[in-house]
Amino acid sequence: MIRVNLSSDYMEGAHSAILSRLCETNTQKSAGYGLDEYSEDAKEKIRTAAQCPTAQIFFLSGGTQANLVTLDALLKSYEGVIAAQSGHISLHEAGAIEHGGHKVLTIPHKNGKISAQDISRLINGYNSDENRDHMVKPGGVYISQPTEYGTIYSKEELSRISAVCREAGIFLYCDGARLAYALGCSENDVFLPDLAKYCDAFYIGGTKCGALFGEAVVFPDKDAFPHFFTIIKQHGALCAKGRILGIQFGVLFENGLYTEIGKNATALARRAQKEISALGYETFVNSPTNQQFFILTKEQYAALREKAAVSFWENLPDGKIVIRIAASFATTKEDIDEFISVMKEIR
Amino acid sequence: MIRVNLSSDYMEGAHSAILSRLCETNTQKSAGYGLDEYSEDAKEKIRTAAQCPTAQIFFLSGGTQANLVTLDALLKSYEGVIAAQSGHISLHEAGAIEHGGHKVLTIPHKNGKISAQDISRLINGYNSDENRDHMVKPGGVYISQPTEYGTIYSKEELSRISAVCREAGIFLYCDGARLAYALGCSENDVFLPDLAKYCDAFYIGGTKCGALFGEAVVFPDKDAFPHFFTIIKQHGALCAKGRILGIQFGVLFENGLYTEIGKNATALARRAQKEISALGYETFVNSPTNQQFFILTKEQYAALREKAAVSFWENLPDGKIVIRIAASFATTKEDIDEFISVMKEIR
Amino acid sequence: MIRVNLSSDYMEGAHSAILSRLCETNTQKSAGYGLDEYSEDAKEKIRTAAQCPTAQIFFLSGGTQANLVTLDALLKSYEGVIAAQSGHISLHEAGAIEHGGHKVLTIPHKNGKISAQDISRLINGYNSDENRDHMVKPGGVYISQPTEYGTIYSKEELSRISAVCREAGIFLYCDGARLAYALGCSENDVFLPDLAKYCDAFYIGGTKCGALFGEAVVFPDKDAFPHFFTIIKQHGALCAKGRILGIQFGVLFENGLYTEIGKNATALARRAQKEISALGYETFVNSPTNQQFFILTKEQYAALREKAAVSFWENLPDGKIVIRIAASFATTKEDIDEFISVMKEIR
Amino acid sequence: MIRVNLSSDYMEGAHSAILSRLCETNTQKSAGYGLDEYSEDAKEKIRTAAQCPTAQIFFLSGGTQANLVTLDALLKSYEGVIAAQSGHISLHEAGAIEHGGHKVLTIPHKNGKISAQDISRLINGYNSDENRDHMVKPGGVYISQPTEYGTIYSKEELSRISAVCREAGIFLYCDGARLAYALGCSENDVFLPDLAKYCDAFYIGGTKCGALFGEAVVFPDKDAFPHFFTIIKQHGALCAKGRILGIQFGVLFENGLYTEIGKNATALARRAQKEISALGYETFVNSPTNQQFFILTKEQYAALREKAAVSFWENLPDGKIVIRIAASFATTKEDIDEFISVMKEIR
Repeated sequence: MIRVNLSSDYMEGAHSAILSRLCETNTQKSAGYGLDEYSEDAKEKIRTAAQCPTAQIFFLSGGTQANLVTLDALLKSYEGVIAAQSGHISLHEAGAIEHGGHKVLTIPHKNGKISAQDISRLINGYNSDENRDHMVKPGGVYISQPTEYGTIYSKEELSRISAVCREAGIFLYCDGARLAYALGCSENDVFLPDLAKYCDAFYIGGTKCGALFGEAVVFPDKDAFPHFFTIIKQHGALCAKGRILGIQFGVLFENGLYTEIGKNATALARRAQKEISALGYETFVNSPTNQQFFILTKEQYAALREKAAVSFWENLPDGKIVIRIAASFATTKEDIDEFISVMKEIR
Repeated sequence: MIRVNLSSDYMEGAHSAILSRLCETNTQKSAGYGLDEYSEDAKEKIRTAAQCPTAQIFFLSGGTQANLVTLDALLKSYEGVIAAQSGHISLHEAGAIEHGGHKVLTIPHKNGKISAQDISRLINGYNSDENRDHMVKPGGVYISQPTEYGTIYSKEELSRISAVCREAGIFLYCDGARLAYALGCSENDVFLPDLAKYCDAFYIGGTKCGALFGEAVVFPDKDAFPHFFTIIKQHGALCAKGRILGIQFGVLFENGLYTEIGKNATALARRAQKEISALGYETFVNSPTNQQFFILTKEQYAALREKAAVSFWENLPDGKIVIRIAASFATTKEDIDEFISVMKEIR
Repeated sequence: MIRVNLSSDYMEGAHSAILSRLCETNTQKSAGYGLDEYSEDAKEKIRTAAQCPTAQIFFLSGGTQANLVTLDALLKSYEGVIAAQSGHISLHEAGAIEHGGHKVLTIPHKNGKISAQDISRLINGYNSDENRDHMVKPGGVYISQPTEYGTIYSKEELSRISAVCREAGIFLYCDGARLAYALGCSENDVFLPDLAKYCDAFYIGGTKCGALFGEAVVFPDKDAFPHFFTIIKQHGALCAKGRILGIQFGVLFENGLYTEIGKNATALARRAQKEISALGYETFVNSPTNQQFFILTKEQYAALREKAAVSFWENLPDGKIVIRIAASFATTKEDIDEFISVMKEIR
Repeated sequence: MIRVNLSSDYMEGAHSAILSRLCETNTQKSAGYGLDEYSEDAKEKIRTAAQCPTAQIFFLSGGTQANLVTLDALLKSYEGVIAAQSGHISLHEAGAIEHGGHKVLTIPHKNGKISAQDISRLINGYNSDENRDHMVKPGGVYISQPTEYGTIYSKEELSRISAVCREAGIFLYCDGARLAYALGCSENDVFLPDLAKYCDAFYIGGTKCGALFGEAVVFPDKDAFPHFFTIIKQHGALCAKGRILGIQFGVLFENGLYTEIGKNATALARRAQKEISALGYETFVNSPTNQQFFILTKEQYAALREKAAVSFWENLPDGKIVIRIAASFATTKEDIDEFISVMKEIR
């Protein structure tokens, strides 16, 4: 019998404060397409949180959508985007970036993170190649915070990547699908004003951070894309009832709820990591956020699957198996206790 | 002072039954990406309603998205889609179909509707043109039910269009952004089983018919697109929390709610039309559904805008102005009474 | 028996001077991809002829290719291009522009020509439309000189179209597939320096004007597209032996050969038009260039096809048929005499 | 002083027999767009040479164009193509495949060649991945014969790759930009009938094998792409004077000229390799075709560049430099002698 389910952070609906607000505002009438007051209010709150009073902000429905629409706007037709081999756009978006006409130029990663040095090496390689005019020009860099492995860039790392990009005249874009869990992490020193300072664009994830759905794309430069609204529409990404997105982000950015959600889930996930490590399990990556990765034997994995739902991550060369758990706004202390019990039982 | 707002059918949240269900199910856990039980249940209800037990069904977020993803799957790279000059894909989707690589081959319309004869003429013109191999091949037909002008195709008209398409070996696709209002219209004789019979694909609109957001794309042929899931993902159109769509459509297709919503709004809109016509106003189109179009003088329009919110539709050559009102799930008898009062006052 | 063939201007090889030069230079070695001295020399000659010493020039293989690569570079992702309903890009390029992601925004034409007024009307319509952010933004204008009907824009007309474009901040692009025949026409007052002055880009057609193949795309602004070389490559439009194009254009722009070719063919075509009109045939369009259009009865057309090869143009509502003849660099006085004889016989 | 130039195989015009035929046929008139008798004759000769009487054949202008147009036709919208990391489409086509919407799925190579085993591994990895519906589906395999490194696949290797593809239901496509040099190589056992048997599509390169320009795309299955003509047009890849391509391929496939060109150049290149190796130079790859790769010290390279033109290939980690020479239809015994002398001098 499955006693606990920690397989992902998008298994439930939304934070209760969001549902309440949707119910309260339900019959009020507003303009469509995000031109409503709820959306305007949410944008203003995000601008305040990011200390970027002139930022352009747009609400989209999902993460792959945010990546493809934004990168389509940022990249020139002959440009590609640099990303980690493990990046979401590299592996798990069904080729959305290529479908939009752009190559993903992959570089090695360490626990999901790429380095300013490797970015620099790729750019220099391109610039010094005699055949560069026959090649895809690197137009920008894609990172995610946290990464696919739950790791986070420090402010120092982010600023170095940003400096390489600005030196080369290319953009830096950050995928923040799970940004709340970085913001809510005690080791983290990259906050919204830092993203606004170092990136040319980033998105604040809602879907995986307590909203029903929705992501907020932020362009710190107010003049970045005067026609981004039309670009959104052209990709089928414009919500007729845009208010639904505005209302949700309005709640998330009220009284620090967004960071609060991240803090709770991250604390729960790290307690699990600490106690499960103490049981003698090896962790696959030292993740400081809401995703945690453990290495199990085949037998342990088989036993685990009878009692708990987790995410299969990968097979290791030695035959062992990596699993991932994720905590969300809806994860409880009891869920974590139960999962630790299960891990104890199968040890 | 604005006393009543009938400017569109996407100004409010969702039908209360939908919100209730979202609240009830909120903390239950489910699989992502539409692979959950709520979505499966909703699909089954739609299959039943359409009397098409093997239909493939996919939930997407919005109408333009449904059109572009589905047409991208239906069209071969060298094909275009036939549509009315007034069609939503022709005018108001920011070139989404062309951005996906396909020409919209426009033909004349009558109150938003195109005829089997005009479709046939275009196909024959293509087939008999010596230069056809240098031209865009018509690959299918796009219609909407109801149309942009609120008019509806009869079963006879639909079956004739379908016959022309099948004879030519091309597809028929129906945009049902406001389908509830056709289904809820007393003159209508095209029901879901008819769409499943005559079309190769169609979508059942949620966003403009009482849902927070969401459209259900239906392929009557179960073998139509084995990889449509990946096509959706590639367009950034896959919801991580797909259950949110499934839950909503589950409610809409329970106890006939979808048609009920359409019936109420249509009845209200038509009462407005009848009484406002009786006041001496001319209607622009004889619409049998939830959208109604009235012709006003410039002076009347100026006076109206002080008291009611409506949608500007177009300027007529004689200087008069066409306005549109739309009723939705949230429109009340009182709203309509108030609007009629306003129209009386400005007469 | 077919006694004479005037069906198009791309039925033969190349002007003999071109073949000679290809033979003379055949074993000399040069750099690839258009970076050779022949290409540089040809570009310099074109810059001189256009009185535009800093123009960027690129040689491509064919007309549709020149249109699609250049328009892809000129148009932003959310923009479409304004063109005549009869334009080559509108009808006879198999949707190449849409395949590249852009809508062709068609406007009416008069004998193939569009007017500054109609362009202005479309732009104003877009700018004043409340829904414009949901629509394709007009990004530029496509014209051809001569047009599909052999007609030519006067300098006055061109300057007015250019003024409308510059006022609106959009580009003007001219397709010169048959430019030699405009330049060689006695009524013409639009020369290369005028195209360089009024257009943002244009191409000088080689394929239909005496070359084996090849078109020269000209950007008067030297800073227009620093990465156009890569854009060409990305479209599969870069010739490895680019010298073949350079050698041909070098010959065409030596001693005025290009205009000379146009002059001869145009003179022959117009003699045909004059004498055939004198026989009582009606012309369909009053074309001043190398293409001429005559109206025949069905019986005349049937008789003609036994004796001469021409191009079928279109069926008229009254059952008559429009044919087109085209003169090229290879057309002789004898060809025209023979064609006139045939027309006399079938009268 | 540069005494000899062996930097590439596309530095000269065309084989003299081709120029002669272009001159002889120059004023004869023919239909456009490849519908002429010269093209038909050339296709028939290729069908005979490939022992594939029903093959569909199309002539295109260049290699990148042939790759992108053919792969666009072969790949479904959600599919990518498997290729060597060193493949021409992977590195040196400016992202043309991605621009057409498809990911290049790279795998490791050995001297430019990929193995059936690595292809199989990628396909199995995809098929067994739980997230495969979120990933790019491998739709086919791209190889080149000879490869970028001049190496060739044996019939055994080709048949094994083909078997893997057919087992997986995906296509095999071969880029034959330099195919003549494989056909003219004494170790080669893959001939045109083998390509027709094992591949779903391949192209026979003209541009780098003695033609002015042109490639012949071959689909062994006559029913492969009924609308490939329109697909070509849509990519701007249709030559108005298609005869120019037909005439050239007609000459190349007359009396075995194509293989003859390959044989001569390959023999010259291999003599260079043998004698230069004997001088003590190391070869970078053991290439059996017209491209040869030598490893030089920095000093040798500097000295070489004063006396001969070659192609820089890459820097080795130890600071040495790889150069490439290529022999073509125009390379003479004297060129090779001179190059050997130079290499002797700088030793």
